[in-house]
Amino acid sequence: MTILINNIRELFQIFEGSSAVCGKAMADSPSLKNAYLFIRDGLIDRFGPAEDAPEHADVVLDAKERLVLPVFIDSHTHIVFPAYREEEFVMKIRGVSYQDIARSGGGILNSARKLNQCSEDELFHLASGRVQEVVEHGTGALEIKSGYGLSVESELKMLRVARRLGEACDIPVRTTFLGAHAVPAGITKDDYVRMVIGEMIPAVAAEHLADYIDVFCEEGFFSMDQSIEILEAGVRAGMKARVHANQLSNSGGVQAAVKTKALSADHLEQIGEEEIKILASSQVMPTALPGAANFLGLSMPPARKMIEAGLPISIASDYNPGSSPSGNLMLMWSLACIRMKMTPEEGLHALTINPAISLEWQSSLGSIWPGKRASLIITRPSERLAFLPYHYGMNAVDMVMLDGQIRFNRNANKR
Amino acid sequence: MTILINNIRELFQIFEGSSAVCGKAMADSPSLKNAYLFIRDGLIDRFGPAEDAPEHADVVLDAKERLVLPVFIDSHTHIVFPAYREEEFVMKIRGVSYQDIARSGGGILNSARKLNQCSEDELFHLASGRVQEVVEHGTGALEIKSGYGLSVESELKMLRVARRLGEACDIPVRTTFLGAHAVPAGITKDDYVRMVIGEMIPAVAAEHLADYIDVFCEEGFFSMDQSIEILEAGVRAGMKARVHANQLSNSGGVQAAVKTKALSADHLEQIGEEEIKILASSQVMPTALPGAANFLGLSMPPARKMIEAGLPISIASDYNPGSSPSGNLMLMWSLACIRMKMTPEEGLHALTINPAISLEWQSSLGSIWPGKRASLIITRPSERLAFLPYHYGMNAVDMVMLDGQIRFNRNANKR
Repeated sequence: MTILINNIRELFQIFEGSSAVCGKAMADSPSLKNAYLFIRDGLIDRFGPAEDAPEHADVVLDAKERLVLPVFIDSHTHIVFPAYREEEFVMKIRGVSYQDIARSGGGILNSARKLNQCSEDELFHLASGRVQEVVEHGTGALEIKSGYGLSVESELKMLRVARRLGEACDIPVRTTFLGAHAVPAGITKDDYVRMVIGEMIPAVAAEHLADYIDVFCEEGFFSMDQSIEILEAGVRAGMKARVHANQLSNSGGVQAAVKTKALSADHLEQIGEEEIKILASSQVMPTALPGAANFLGLSMPPARKMIEAGLPISIASDYNPGSSPSGNLMLMWSLACIRMKMTPEEGLHALTINPAISLEWQSSLGSIWPGKRASLIITRPSERLAFLPYHYGMNAVDMVMLDGQIRFNRNANKR
Repeated sequence: MTILINNIRELFQIFEGSSAVCGKAMADSPSLKNAYLFIRDGLIDRFGPAEDAPEHADVVLDAKERLVLPVFIDSHTHIVFPAYREEEFVMKIRGVSYQDIARSGGGILNSARKLNQCSEDELFHLASGRVQEVVEHGTGALEIKSGYGLSVESELKMLRVARRLGEACDIPVRTTFLGAHAVPAGITKDDYVRMVIGEMIPAVAAEHLADYIDVFCEEGFFSMDQSIEILEAGVRAGMKARVHANQLSNSGGVQAAVKTKALSADHLEQIGEEEIKILASSQVMPTALPGAANFLGLSMPPARKMIEAGLPISIASDYNPGSSPSGNLMLMWSLACIRMKMTPEEGLHALTINPAISLEWQSSLGSIWPGKRASLIITRPSERLAFLPYHYGMNAVDMVMLDGQIRFNRNANKR
């Protein structure tokens, strides 16, 4: 089965993409104007100037006036959850504090209570609808965390649903065990840490349910030392580390990530020169979640300082019912440009190659290169890349193809 | 022709809606759970509990699990423009100032130069695509300003296109003459004010092209005195006033609006206690444009203070290629809740009845009431109103009906 996409106005991210794009290099997105892209059996076969396009293909798409990009990769989601929490959104608007919402049964524990009552099939059904919705906004691969179970059985349930989503929705998924997301009621923090290490990690590892392990390293949640202890236990059980770091305070999350050779440190609203220096001496991928910062009214991570220090940046949605009820990465790109002063090209690296690196998908995703998956965004007619984040909130995606299969087509049945 | 929409989970904004909803009253959106709505010949005929629904109708829609709202009304747009300006967006990200962008040929004068080269048909074609796009996000009636012409002929061209859009797109449109949007090159400000008053206003009035007159009252643009002079000339020619007020500085725009009995004062990022007091003693509709404030990195208008002072608020998109390249009112609702701390109900009044009042459509739009146009949003399955702005960036519209005609149906396109 071959597909020819021809007359592409501009084809972006054409490089092998085997390592992160860092610092100044993020400003440049290698591209080819007036290009063709040839797909064979779901993989990118080759590309080049439109006048050199192959004459025959089983399917020919004319991309007239459209840009083609690799799909976005969402490296931080909590997309498996039992229910939205819009009632807490209204409480927050009315000035109720996060702490008071938590005390009245809200927050992560609210989701945990509901998750316990939700069957695996129901959870799967809810989450698969959300996956289709994010695909329509350009996401073509994603990471999914547990962390609303907070008991052995419920954490396993969430991770099983996450694995099943990847298979049933035919989309690449990496799973992350986040038992240390909050401390459930009726147990001390120390005892819960013992349970995460002594019971949950072995159970998750026995079923091979998680690729990664994550901890919410934050004041009032898990300290730097507790985080390191949990992450190291996960690493010993075969899961690499990722960390919720420095969202609400300078929590030591960055240090925990570097110490455990984490693949990524996520949030980073509260980092200073020191943390930037530590990150620059490591292989940890700094990951910004501008949707959560926007939704909670926090300041944004210091993206420009990080880029000036030579760091790479990833952007992810943090899709979850409490602090970022959206998985629209096209909008996150806009927020990164508007609020973090990233250029459109820097944002594109942060949504494609850099998250591919932090999810260890560099051989199959993150750029347009022969042998990689033909997982693509075909945009609406657009003159240049900057139009996509600039035209904010107006989903610039016309078509999403995963492994050569059309998974969303805005124009399929236009009246 | 009759249409029955039945099993509506909750029908919102059921009141006659002949006056603005102000202050504390904005917190409550009168609604009916498990309702029917009956439409006859494009108008709302009646509504009530689902069990009382009429037995016969030409068309029956089952709204199962969905909410029904009156369409959004966008009371401030510049949707007729010749080209997007994403290249200036990138300049701004790189730190080039608005003034320097203007000096290098950017800003409003950039649009004016391109508009002069653009035919009426081309302008119409571009703008009608944008109208369909905003309808898909819930807009069902809109105001359109001139102001990229800056010459008699080009201002008339813009207004003709705006009028034609209303007819050809079958959507209610009010037009506003905004000759005083900027001063074109090669003429002094004083001479341009003379031209606006002496040539443009009479020409616009002669062809009945504008319902309203507007001025950009701002430091570096038009002073309070110049604004009043221009607005009063427009009023004498039969156009009511609207004002671009207090966006970048405390410019006297609010005072100009009150003095000229304007229908609305728009922007209001830079108002203090004094302006709130003046507005409270007037009939001027305070209109927030959170998309522009977000895109430009300005602080938001003090919505809570205005509501506490008993004022009504409208929200509009300010859709334009420079400072708010989006007409997504669903997202503006989210921004109003997240950034201005308006509750979902306050936001709904600000998107429906209040702009209907400022555009003098209170007898036909802005609420669900017998005799009003059957112009409706049918949402995605949602448990409560707050879900719509909470699920930010993920267009919660399933269907938009204007005058009883389906104009957008997300599920018609489903594969």
